[in-house]
Amino acid sequence: MTYDASIFQAHRGGKLTTASTVALASREDLSIAYTPGVAQVCEAIAADPSLADTYTWVAHAVAVVTDGSAVLGLGNIGPRAALPVMEGKAVLFKQFGEVDAVPICLDTQDTEEIIAAVTALAPSFGGINLEDISAPRCFEIERRLDAALNIPVFHDDQHGTAIVVLAALRNAAVVLDRKVADLRIVVSGAGAAGNAVARMLLTGGATDVVVLDSRGVIHRDRGDLDPEKAALAGITNPRGVRGGIVDALRGADVLVGVSGGTIGEEALAGMAPGGAIFALANPTPEVHPDVAARYAAVVATGRSDFPNQINNVLAFPGIFRGALDARATRVTDAMKLAAADAIAAIVADELSAGAIVPSPLDPRVAPAVAAIVAEVARQEGVTR
Amino acid sequence: MTYDASIFQAHRGGKLTTASTVALASREDLSIAYTPGVAQVCEAIAADPSLADTYTWVAHAVAVVTDGSAVLGLGNIGPRAALPVMEGKAVLFKQFGEVDAVPICLDTQDTEEIIAAVTALAPSFGGINLEDISAPRCFEIERRLDAALNIPVFHDDQHGTAIVVLAALRNAAVVLDRKVADLRIVVSGAGAAGNAVARMLLTGGATDVVVLDSRGVIHRDRGDLDPEKAALAGITNPRGVRGGIVDALRGADVLVGVSGGTIGEEALAGMAPGGAIFALANPTPEVHPDVAARYAAVVATGRSDFPNQINNVLAFPGIFRGALDARATRVTDAMKLAAADAIAAIVADELSAGAIVPSPLDPRVAPAVAAIVAEVARQEGVTR
Repeated sequence: MTYDASIFQAHRGGKLTTASTVALASREDLSIAYTPGVAQVCEAIAADPSLADTYTWVAHAVAVVTDGSAVLGLGNIGPRAALPVMEGKAVLFKQFGEVDAVPICLDTQDTEEIIAAVTALAPSFGGINLEDISAPRCFEIERRLDAALNIPVFHDDQHGTAIVVLAALRNAAVVLDRKVADLRIVVSGAGAAGNAVARMLLTGGATDVVVLDSRGVIHRDRGDLDPEKAALAGITNPRGVRGGIVDALRGADVLVGVSGGTIGEEALAGMAPGGAIFALANPTPEVHPDVAARYAAVVATGRSDFPNQINNVLAFPGIFRGALDARATRVTDAMKLAAADAIAAIVADELSAGAIVPSPLDPRVAPAVAAIVAEVARQEGVTR
Repeated sequence: MTYDASIFQAHRGGKLTTASTVALASREDLSIAYTPGVAQVCEAIAADPSLADTYTWVAHAVAVVTDGSAVLGLGNIGPRAALPVMEGKAVLFKQFGEVDAVPICLDTQDTEEIIAAVTALAPSFGGINLEDISAPRCFEIERRLDAALNIPVFHDDQHGTAIVVLAALRNAAVVLDRKVADLRIVVSGAGAAGNAVARMLLTGGATDVVVLDSRGVIHRDRGDLDPEKAALAGITNPRGVRGGIVDALRGADVLVGVSGGTIGEEALAGMAPGGAIFALANPTPEVHPDVAARYAAVVATGRSDFPNQINNVLAFPGIFRGALDARATRVTDAMKLAAADAIAAIVADELSAGAIVPSPLDPRVAPAVAAIVAEVARQEGVTR
């Protein structure tokens, strides 16, 4: 993509602002919103901290936290350069979920320091959206924050992607007249997204998932796996596939690309006919959709200029809106599965090979996701 | 003050919200504000970090950071109970300074952890307003953050108060036909506000300032002083006053109360005639203004229901607006002095014993303060 002055113009001064929801026109207004009136509210919360959910903005406020280590496809560009993305995320939260999100770009890439900083600032927010933190640190950071905090912690690169992929796969299976449980699925990429996609698909009913990292198929006998990939090896690859992408795709029904590399036609040629290819790397898909269409009946990408855009914005605004509405303490697998179902159901009546997911702009999505996520949170009792 | 349902109603859901400043109605809008377009802006900032001042919200965004250890007159009520105050501060920032402020209430009261957390989150903001952090920790926290960060760090309980007190004292001196340098000034209270008020008055031309803590007058021979108070002893009390408030006020022209205690009439009776009393404790002044009027020609409080309300909102919105406009790296003494002058000058034409400071709602104040603060920052070269 070439330099585009109109893009820079749109980002001038940033994309986010704040506003007051109370009047500040008179001395009496000031005495209610600020001193001395505010002291009554402070004392009430000091006596009963749960009142913060009612009398502060934590009921609708989320921190979008990054360390700038894995931003979009740009890699480790640091916290300052990551801020435009986090602001963008914040305005999407507002637009689609009525969630007030604040970008928090951390000037550290140390796991312990990140955990300490997020734990420290947590009382100001009702949820933590982790964003663009590189693997494998992202797994430990999310896991430990989730355990430490009584508000939802959700790494969107993992779970947002995984939820929308599951929604898309469920609808693709309907279009293809197949069952998810019968599909041979290959996930190319074992970073944040690949790991979470593989786990979510298994949780959602898939039985045969093979994952590849940059060195090839992940299996139990590989001696070069970090703990996260070793855990993945224990729950995937039931047929004991070995080798590279050509080996993995031989006879496969579904390819989910979340790697950023390219996948050649010699590998795609081995896929079973009538399957699905989700090539999600942005801005350059692992397989161009025109090429993918020669080898699969359903094709999806992450791009807005082709059909079937698999975009996290279908998930995260509704997930957090629902979690906040329920005062959820975490986002469970059941909440994620329900969100995937809700996203898939939106297009059930108009389902076709070119419309397995709703448009990212579809205003029906976030409210539907929010409603079911809140309902499941209450059913599971994971609420404050 | 009794429980007031209308106050709680006003605080329901908090007082702060966010909004997008860019369009998000079409796929093209999304491709500009978010992927793929945003990547161009990220790459530009990665190549030249100073562009973050132009293409992100740091140009107008400030974190209002507290640990909840010294909130209003309520004391150590913790981060959750402090949030309504920080939200209130944030909406005042917006209303008077067009500054987008975000409340950050930290779940730690450890000096090192506070410094680490604020240092970590600094890239997301153009300034740090420290708030309601107890003394003496507040001094070290501010000093070390000021040294570590290239954005302004400003503890409002110290400097906001000190700036407005200096503005008020300068105008009081005019009303009283005295020179600030000739006044005997007593500061009752040696916490965050008292320490900063004493220093600011000296920087602003006062020569005879005596400070008291809860144990009495601070002087060089006291063996029970912490390092901050010992430093204060070295620059105040030139006449070597010893004893308590009665001793300190004997012959004094000005009393500045920032202690929260009460000061009895037997002490006030010793003051020189025709002076000034600023009794700033909130909501209960150290001296009721009706009593103070028997012993002083000019009386000020922190309350909105008496004349001469000394309120930090006269300072902090303009200070930060000016610092942000100049891309200042810090707030210097010269910037603070200029701010005090600007506040004092607003009411120069209408000056009287009952109007030594502008109303907190006066819309002329913040722009005047911002303009001079930015100008001085540029003159001093303390800009990025």
